[in-house]
Amino acid sequence: MPEAPPGGLDRIALLRPLTAEQRLAVARQCRWRRFAPDEQLIDHWADTRDVAFIVDGRVRVVSHSAGGREVSFSDIESGELVGEMSALDGRPRSASVVALGEGTLIAFLPARPFQQLVAAHPELAMAMMLRLCDKLRSATDRIMELSTLGANNRIHAELLRLAKRGTRRGTSAIIAPIPVHSDIAARVSTTRETVARVLSDLTRDGVLERRSDALVVRDLPRLELLVEDVRGGT
Amino acid sequence: MPEAPPGGLDRIALLRPLTAEQRLAVARQCRWRRFAPDEQLIDHWADTRDVAFIVDGRVRVVSHSAGGREVSFSDIESGELVGEMSALDGRPRSASVVALGEGTLIAFLPARPFQQLVAAHPELAMAMMLRLCDKLRSATDRIMELSTLGANNRIHAELLRLAKRGTRRGTSAIIAPIPVHSDIAARVSTTRETVARVLSDLTRDGVLERRSDALVVRDLPRLELLVEDVRGGT
Repeated sequence: MPEAPPGGLDRIALLRPLTAEQRLAVARQCRWRRFAPDEQLIDHWADTRDVAFIVDGRVRVVSHSAGGREVSFSDIESGELVGEMSALDGRPRSASVVALGEGTLIAFLPARPFQQLVAAHPELAMAMMLRLCDKLRSATDRIMELSTLGANNRIHAELLRLAKRGTRRGTSAIIAPIPVHSDIAARVSTTRETVARVLSDLTRDGVLERRSDALVVRDLPRLELLVEDVRGGT
Repeated sequence: MPEAPPGGLDRIALLRPLTAEQRLAVARQCRWRRFAPDEQLIDHWADTRDVAFIVDGRVRVVSHSAGGREVSFSDIESGELVGEMSALDGRPRSASVVALGEGTLIAFLPARPFQQLVAAHPELAMAMMLRLCDKLRSATDRIMELSTLGANNRIHAELLRLAKRGTRRGTSAIIAPIPVHSDIAARVSTTRETVARVLSDLTRDGVLERRSDALVVRDLPRLELLVEDVRGGT
């Protein structure tokens, strides 16, 4: 088990309102561990309740159907946390969490001290509420997409989200690194084959261009139109 | 506009930790209004941010696709609240809310005093976090169902949820009043026609019986099996 690095929790956004001393006290209550790529830090079916601070690296929240289909919920960056629901409400895990990169460093804080921490600092409680609202809004959007859009349009909508987070160049947007087809499939609940087909259609139509190191949306307004047309926009 | 009834907010579960005096102070900051059935109390596209306490009656959270398809999220009972996300994070409404019965009485508290109230009482903050966790867990379950189950099995899963909330009689469960087909369709994101077909199949197979005043699940273990078989369960 790695030692708590000095100032190890300084990069965790939630804990920023605390003093350095208070953060150190929290760090000492944590169990620290590094994870290899694809290693599970939270197991959907395990009886654990601690919250995981992502000190270094990135993690992915995933769930699997009986048939083995992977549904992915969100990728969580270093500086954030995951597993807060079970830590707060004491109920079983709602999904698994796996490490994405090399040497992902996690600080696990047990449920009890996490609850006490949040109860003692109203600004942390408010930050947790905003975080839960944000996740609930994403989930609501996804339910709407799954309920009203076909797989093709859900892929268009996901590409648009990636493009908006990418680098803009006029009416183009650069998505780098190139997203893996199976990742897109797991995020919008479709098959890898459907993702491959839709991306190839968009490339043929000049909306998309695949470079060696990036996926380029060449015609952002047209992609937006494809999504707005079915969604109704506002 | 109706007057704030004395003790009007006493039945709101969230506010129970407050003293009667504190609740009265909150009640005085509210705008009180009664709604007719199907009348909107929160409009998805309106620029409002207040939280709505359901003092009397029931409400339904719904959203509509561009094509006019209704997706319903949850029904909220008297004593609870709705609209808390926009009140907390200041972002636009994620859905609309309509009254279900006659004379639904709502107390609207503006975002600012709601935030101050939650910030001043750690037990209210914790209750809000648990509430958001609960909604997020339901949303996660629904995303899994939409991603991995066909419409038939989503209807089976919804019937099982209704049965578990109904009256148990050995291996039977009584669901009363009879749920409306279009309500089930909006909750599991399918068409009314599919709901009618699946219920009629279940009736033919002896799993379900339609009485004049109730829907009876006659063989709960078999319905459970239908759901577990595809879901994998645990």
